[in-house]
Amino acid sequence: MELGPNSYDITVERGCLQRADALLNLDRRVLIVTDRGVPRQYAETLAARCKEPVVAVVAPGEGNKTMETVTGLCRTMLEHRFSRGDCVAAVGGGMVGDLAGFAAACFMRGVDFYNLPTTLLSQVDSSIGGKTGVNLDGVKNIVGAFWQPRGVLIDPDTLDTLPPRLWAEGMAEYVKMALTLDGELFAALQREDPRQDMTRTLERALGLKKNVVERDEREAGPRKLLNFGHTIGHGVESAAGGALYHGECVALGMLPMCSPAVRAQLRPVLERLGLPTSTGLDKQAVWEAMLHDKKSNSGGFSAVFVEEPGKGYVKNVSFAEMRAILEGAWQA
Amino acid sequence: MELGPNSYDITVERGCLQRADALLNLDRRVLIVTDRGVPRQYAETLAARCKEPVVAVVAPGEGNKTMETVTGLCRTMLEHRFSRGDCVAAVGGGMVGDLAGFAAACFMRGVDFYNLPTTLLSQVDSSIGGKTGVNLDGVKNIVGAFWQPRGVLIDPDTLDTLPPRLWAEGMAEYVKMALTLDGELFAALQREDPRQDMTRTLERALGLKKNVVERDEREAGPRKLLNFGHTIGHGVESAAGGALYHGECVALGMLPMCSPAVRAQLRPVLERLGLPTSTGLDKQAVWEAMLHDKKSNSGGFSAVFVEEPGKGYVKNVSFAEMRAILEGAWQA
Repeated sequence: MELGPNSYDITVERGCLQRADALLNLDRRVLIVTDRGVPRQYAETLAARCKEPVVAVVAPGEGNKTMETVTGLCRTMLEHRFSRGDCVAAVGGGMVGDLAGFAAACFMRGVDFYNLPTTLLSQVDSSIGGKTGVNLDGVKNIVGAFWQPRGVLIDPDTLDTLPPRLWAEGMAEYVKMALTLDGELFAALQREDPRQDMTRTLERALGLKKNVVERDEREAGPRKLLNFGHTIGHGVESAAGGALYHGECVALGMLPMCSPAVRAQLRPVLERLGLPTSTGLDKQAVWEAMLHDKKSNSGGFSAVFVEEPGKGYVKNVSFAEMRAILEGAWQA
Repeated sequence: MELGPNSYDITVERGCLQRADALLNLDRRVLIVTDRGVPRQYAETLAARCKEPVVAVVAPGEGNKTMETVTGLCRTMLEHRFSRGDCVAAVGGGMVGDLAGFAAACFMRGVDFYNLPTTLLSQVDSSIGGKTGVNLDGVKNIVGAFWQPRGVLIDPDTLDTLPPRLWAEGMAEYVKMALTLDGELFAALQREDPRQDMTRTLERALGLKKNVVERDEREAGPRKLLNFGHTIGHGVESAAGGALYHGECVALGMLPMCSPAVRAQLRPVLERLGLPTSTGLDKQAVWEAMLHDKKSNSGGFSAVFVEEPGKGYVKNVSFAEMRAILEGAWQA
């Protein structure tokens, strides 16, 4: 990833977790953050390669992605006498990466951060963008920092332990990137199963994300395209109260933002990947959650639309227009 | 302040608080953070010039400079539906600036921050460096961010309400800058009372600080000189448990880091400004607080020394050497 002084390497390689000490500087104190839902073996594999590992196991779930948990991680570093030259490493999904990354961003005003995502969702999407954060009062990622990792290790072998629904939700973000950024890739998705060659799929996804982040580290421009599906998706996620996974909500959030022709192409792709294409959730509840969401602003919504695969664009729409889009969503 | 995309204006001018709306963009939601110890009139003056002001009054003192208080400020912004285009303004001393600045740094991963310091200490020292942060478990500023303000207003008229001890502690930081960075200014301090012309004194202090921060925004090099007096000073501050002000502790912390000849010049300057030059605090308690402090690292201390006025330098010293320096401190 080329970001001037914030540049770093992303390694996509089977078994790279086993040789993390050759790829990262682990010859110091390393706070390894993982959660109880992540197979313990991954954190242990990493810890065995660190000079002074400290493993922090947090409770899983977005409900624990809070300022209190970040404070607890900082306290753990303080107790173990971490200095500015020490570092934090996340081993797990996006929740662990967001939390650990934010703790790294603010402990001593910033220490090195390594991301070792072990879920497909975090591998394709959240591991390399530098966005960190926690939730507050039910609003997702409302408090956080832009803090780039010093290195990212993506080991496709960790997907061997991933349950089917977590596979599916990762694929939703992959479809999102194809649909907004790369028409050819979306065409390939209509023909082939991306799960056949995961190293290639991960490389493609990361290549797209890398390109966008390099052009727009702080999300002032093109990076906003990666919010495709997230305007309604976040509302769905809040309204579902944990019953739907993030990627499933993104799948549901993408459909209403497509032109009818694109939607007709998208639906079978999502179905084949095991993703939902309709929901019985109360639309008023979704709407209220959307209004509460941080992407809303006084003038309406800034949202991403797709009328031609590979060519997402940002458009400002009024509250009334967005309400109408939601009202028409998920019809057969 | 020239910091590329992070550049901003610093206004030093009598009465500038009265015309803040001409100098800052207040035509939006503005979270005005102040504390109960700050004369209420200053926050009210600013609020009267904002389109949508929200005033948050926090409890004063370092004990309230916590993650919990920052979380509360973020919650207030959330309740008032702040968006990324809104901003935070600090009105008060360094504690308010540190807190408000950190809340601005992390709300929505960063919103605009304005600093309107009303104490001499914050005007000469903490208002323009971009360091924000909170305390955790008794360790000062251990969690925070580098987040530059978008504008700084320094109104010398606010010093009219400042109690004498707060005057003195501000002067301690001024002496610190002269002693480490500007030998001529230190010579002037030996001849003249800097309180005679406060606009000029503030301009001189800010000029020095600005120059150092511009060369070293993230404190990788020359900016470390501004930590002069803070290695022992922070230990004194912790050990004193609130009985001494920050600047008084810096005064005490500078003396042992000077050569005997410089110390002999420094002592009468401090005395004339109403600052302490000795303390009966238990040195073992000071030492333990120093070890607990964030500037310590496994190899000893990186500390600033002065052997010639205007030429501070950073030197690594062992634990034993620093313990000996502390042991010999404050002898007549």
